[in-house]
Amino acid sequence: MHPVCPAPILSHETVQMAHGAGGRLSQELTKRVFMPHLRNTFLDQMDDQAKFEVVSGRMAFSTDTYVVSPLFFPGGNIGELAVNGTVNDLAVGGAVPQYLSAGFVLEEGLALAELEEIVRSMAESARKAGVMIVCGDTKVVQKGQCDKIFINTSGVGYVRKGIELSCRNLKAGDAVIVSGSIGDHGMAVMTTREGLSFQSRISSDTAALNGMVHAVLDVVPGVHAMRDPTRGGVAATLNELASSSSVGIELDESAIPVREEVRGAAELLGIDPLTIANEGKLLLIVPEADSGEVLAIMRAHEHGRDAALIGRVVDDHPGMVVMRTPFGSRRIVEMPLGEQLPRIC
Amino acid sequence: MHPVCPAPILSHETVQMAHGAGGRLSQELTKRVFMPHLRNTFLDQMDDQAKFEVVSGRMAFSTDTYVVSPLFFPGGNIGELAVNGTVNDLAVGGAVPQYLSAGFVLEEGLALAELEEIVRSMAESARKAGVMIVCGDTKVVQKGQCDKIFINTSGVGYVRKGIELSCRNLKAGDAVIVSGSIGDHGMAVMTTREGLSFQSRISSDTAALNGMVHAVLDVVPGVHAMRDPTRGGVAATLNELASSSSVGIELDESAIPVREEVRGAAELLGIDPLTIANEGKLLLIVPEADSGEVLAIMRAHEHGRDAALIGRVVDDHPGMVVMRTPFGSRRIVEMPLGEQLPRIC
Repeated sequence: MHPVCPAPILSHETVQMAHGAGGRLSQELTKRVFMPHLRNTFLDQMDDQAKFEVVSGRMAFSTDTYVVSPLFFPGGNIGELAVNGTVNDLAVGGAVPQYLSAGFVLEEGLALAELEEIVRSMAESARKAGVMIVCGDTKVVQKGQCDKIFINTSGVGYVRKGIELSCRNLKAGDAVIVSGSIGDHGMAVMTTREGLSFQSRISSDTAALNGMVHAVLDVVPGVHAMRDPTRGGVAATLNELASSSSVGIELDESAIPVREEVRGAAELLGIDPLTIANEGKLLLIVPEADSGEVLAIMRAHEHGRDAALIGRVVDDHPGMVVMRTPFGSRRIVEMPLGEQLPRIC
Repeated sequence: MHPVCPAPILSHETVQMAHGAGGRLSQELTKRVFMPHLRNTFLDQMDDQAKFEVVSGRMAFSTDTYVVSPLFFPGGNIGELAVNGTVNDLAVGGAVPQYLSAGFVLEEGLALAELEEIVRSMAESARKAGVMIVCGDTKVVQKGQCDKIFINTSGVGYVRKGIELSCRNLKAGDAVIVSGSIGDHGMAVMTTREGLSFQSRISSDTAALNGMVHAVLDVVPGVHAMRDPTRGGVAATLNELASSSSVGIELDESAIPVREEVRGAAELLGIDPLTIANEGKLLLIVPEADSGEVLAIMRAHEHGRDAALIGRVVDDHPGMVVMRTPFGSRRIVEMPLGEQLPRIC
């Protein structure tokens, strides 16, 4: 009979088809690449599902798949993006993010060193955000059948009692607040991809916003709506909010923080910074009376130092977002039709 | 000023990059392809996260990404697989599956009609399984950057009280039960892909097993472990269980149900049916005294008609699975090293 210990497995430097087959090489990948970084009491169980205690109340559930290209860009990589993105999607619903899943699709031939760097970033981002990655899955497809790595993260967390955030809550008079400069993430990815000279000076804003979200909600539970303006940027998010609440939104162009480098790159590429994806920014719609307090709390937070009041909810032009320019004219901020910057997240 | 209604969007027949950009074409895809089939009170909210009530207790959370090729095969398609797979991963942990997320990665150029057929199947599978798809995400990558469509589903459900299923629970004397014939799914996909003549006669077993799982647990809450033997098949699953519990498993080859067509195709391809993926089969490890009752319950269920007792847990050879052949000899059933049938799920 064979010895109980399986024969040693050849040490691969790249992802093999067999790493996704559920056999010994799958176990090897888990043991060598995933567990050293992600290890926790849930993953240690090695069951097909994670189990945790919940208390009665409302729970939030969100999912996002990340296909950003390139995988590494100034200020972050696909792993950080995947963790922070789902953390933020939960937080903007008034939930405290707790548990994440991670589903990987790997291309045969991907360097294991790259995968490990991504996994390491995921672990670090999860630690910073105070969440645990409790279950996962890895599939491998043949070379040429996916672009290096795609990562899905889904997440759950409990919804704080007494918090009612919804895209249908906007009221005329509300203040529109953004947590900082816009367009940084999309432009960091884009300029890296295109090899533009701005590259070194533009950095992704990817960050977990749950800390700042809950710092605000602790003091101002009556926030009307929160969103993280990712794909489609501030333009898409505000159009969705205006449309869902049947109100108008009026923005003050001179109040919107845009970094000089981002503005320059956007002009060069012919892109409106309002339509560029952000991965560490927050849009809040708050009753006017609360706006000063909200701004103060945000500015005291590392991810909200440049928070600004950028506009108002109005009764006019329901469903539309209108921008007042520094020259006194007004222009419509349209819902972007589609793709200006593909695969930005 | 523009009219409030956006201009009509050209009617596309295939997936465009802009369908994944978070703008108007993303909304159009959601409205035209996803919502008609998946619509429910959660998705209607159009928020970044779904919120639902939970009661105190344990909750299970699981994730899986599906990359099966081809997308359509006898007996099912990637959509059914994606729903049933995550439902089953929750159920085998003793959880009642409730809410699913769906994350799509689409290749530019995929026919919208194909996507719609897949989404329709997901909706139908969810209905059959009694779960709701409550949140989703769609990304699009350029032609050639993924193979048509990958789907991640994650799911949550509450864990039934008094149920303690774990891969570490196996005890010598326990009965090993399988819910029916093995290898059907993997062989259905493989023979379709290879154009083998068996193709028309082998059909995937993809099915939601939560109904049968809970029918068993209602009567026999003391089941020790349950697994759905997917990637790596019965061989991988039983090796994992034996290893986790530090026990041996002895199988009776003549008791293992394998369809004639599957056996033939497996012989032709030189593959052991024990290593082939199943997507609608259940492995149960139960105390010997309960085995008769468990078999009777399973055989009364549509997905367990051919349930069979196929082996025993033993004190000998801990961590190893051993097969008794009809000729009285014994052979080791090894943990598969890796890939025999890539992209089967």
